[in-house]
Amino acid sequence: MFMTYQKPLLGVLGGMGPLATVDFMHKLVQEMPAAVDQDHVPVVAWNVAQIPDRQKFLAGTGESPLPAMLEGLQRLVAAGATRIVIPCNTAHNWFDALAAESSVPLIHIVDATLKVLRQQTAGAGGPVGLIATRGMLASGLYQKRIEAEGLSCLCSTEEELDRMFTPGCYAVKGGDVENGARLLEQAADALLDRGATRFIMACTEVPVAFERINSRYLPISIDTNRALARACVEYWQEVRN
Amino acid sequence: MFMTYQKPLLGVLGGMGPLATVDFMHKLVQEMPAAVDQDHVPVVAWNVAQIPDRQKFLAGTGESPLPAMLEGLQRLVAAGATRIVIPCNTAHNWFDALAAESSVPLIHIVDATLKVLRQQTAGAGGPVGLIATRGMLASGLYQKRIEAEGLSCLCSTEEELDRMFTPGCYAVKGGDVENGARLLEQAADALLDRGATRFIMACTEVPVAFERINSRYLPISIDTNRALARACVEYWQEVRN
Repeated sequence: MFMTYQKPLLGVLGGMGPLATVDFMHKLVQEMPAAVDQDHVPVVAWNVAQIPDRQKFLAGTGESPLPAMLEGLQRLVAAGATRIVIPCNTAHNWFDALAAESSVPLIHIVDATLKVLRQQTAGAGGPVGLIATRGMLASGLYQKRIEAEGLSCLCSTEEELDRMFTPGCYAVKGGDVENGARLLEQAADALLDRGATRFIMACTEVPVAFERINSRYLPISIDTNRALARACVEYWQEVRN
Repeated sequence: MFMTYQKPLLGVLGGMGPLATVDFMHKLVQEMPAAVDQDHVPVVAWNVAQIPDRQKFLAGTGESPLPAMLEGLQRLVAAGATRIVIPCNTAHNWFDALAAESSVPLIHIVDATLKVLRQQTAGAGGPVGLIATRGMLASGLYQKRIEAEGLSCLCSTEEELDRMFTPGCYAVKGGDVENGARLLEQAADALLDRGATRFIMACTEVPVAFERINSRYLPISIDTNRALARACVEYWQEVRN
C-alpha cells in the first residue's frame, strides 16, 4: 500500500461533543455545491470524546483537555490533514496553544463567524446576543471581535448560565435534546428582553438543539458550525485544483 | 507530543457517499447509551469521497475504487483504528480484499444486518425486499445470507433499477434528497407488489432519503447503517474497560 492521497484534506478535531462534530460534518456536505460524491470536501475526522470536560476545567474543577486535544491534532496531521478546524467554540480557548504546536494551519471559528456576521441582514446593526458557555464568554473571544466591528454584545448573566444555558447544554450532550433546547431558548429569551436583535449560537450544541425544535430564534441566529463549514468550503474551492 | 491514546478506536472508511458516512456517525451517537460526551464510541473517520464510482466500476464503465479504499484503510490504521467499518453496502464487494490487507479486523455490514433481521418482528417470516444497487444485488451477499436463514428474498428487476433505484440513489447523492426518495419508494412499491412484507435498505443512501420524507416504509425496513452502528456500540461496550 502506498500513500497516494497527497491532495488537500480537511482535518476535523472533534468529539467536543460528538454530536456537534457530526452536525458540522453534515453542514459541510450541505454547504458544498456538489453534483456527485467526488466533489465534496475531503475530510478526516477525529471524533474521540474521551477529552476532559472543557467547561469544568475552565471553572477550575477538572483536568486540562489540552493534552488530549494535542493528541487528536497530531493524529490528524499524521493522517494527512492540510488544514484543521475544531467544531467547538469553547475549545477555541486552546486555539493558540494548538496552532503553536501544529505543522498545518487552523481555521478559527470566530473568524468564520465574523465573516457571516458582516453579511447578516436580519437584526443588522442591533446588539448581538451571545449564547455561549461560561468559559467561552470569559475568554472574550467573540466580544472583542464583535465590538471591533462597532457593534454591541450581550451575554448571559451568571444566574442565567447556571439556570438555563449550562443545564441546557449538558441536556443536549446527554441526548435529551428537546428539553435542552427549551432551556437554551430561555437563555435567548433573557438576552432578547435586554435588547438583543439577533444571536450568535456560539456553542455548537445550540444549533443542534434549536433545529430539533425548529426554534423561532433560528432565522435571526448565526450558526457557528455552519459558518465554519462555509469557511472550509471556501478553503477547498481555493485549493482543490 | 506523544501518542497516548492507545485505547480501542473505531475507524470509519467513509466517503461512499459522504452523506451516508455522516448518517452512520449520527446513528452511532444515537445508538450509544451515553450520559456524557466521554461515554461515546471513539471514532476516526476517513470521509474522502474522491474514490472512483463503485456502481460504475461494477457496471464495467469506470476504474476500480480499490486502491483509493486501501489508501483510506491504511490512513485509519495509521491513525490508530482498532476495528474498521465501511458505511456503504456496495463497497462490501471489496470487503474481502480490504480485510486481507488490513492489520485490524473489519465488521461486515451484512453480519450486522442479519443480526437485526433475526430480531425483527414487523413482517417476520415473509419475503425480504432488498433495496440495493445493481452491483450489490449482483454480488449476492445479502441474498445468500437471507436464504441461509430459510427466508426468501426479492430484488428489483433490471428495468426497476434503471428507472427507479439508480436515478433515485444518484439524486440523493447529488443533494436532491426528496425527489430521490420518491424514486426509491417506487422501487420499494414494486417489491411490495411482488409480495415483500419488509425491506432491507441495503444502500446507505436509502434511509437518509426515507427519513427525509418520513417514508411509510420506515417501520418495516431495516436500516443497514443503524445495524452497523449497533454492532459498533456492542464492540465498544465489550472492549472499553
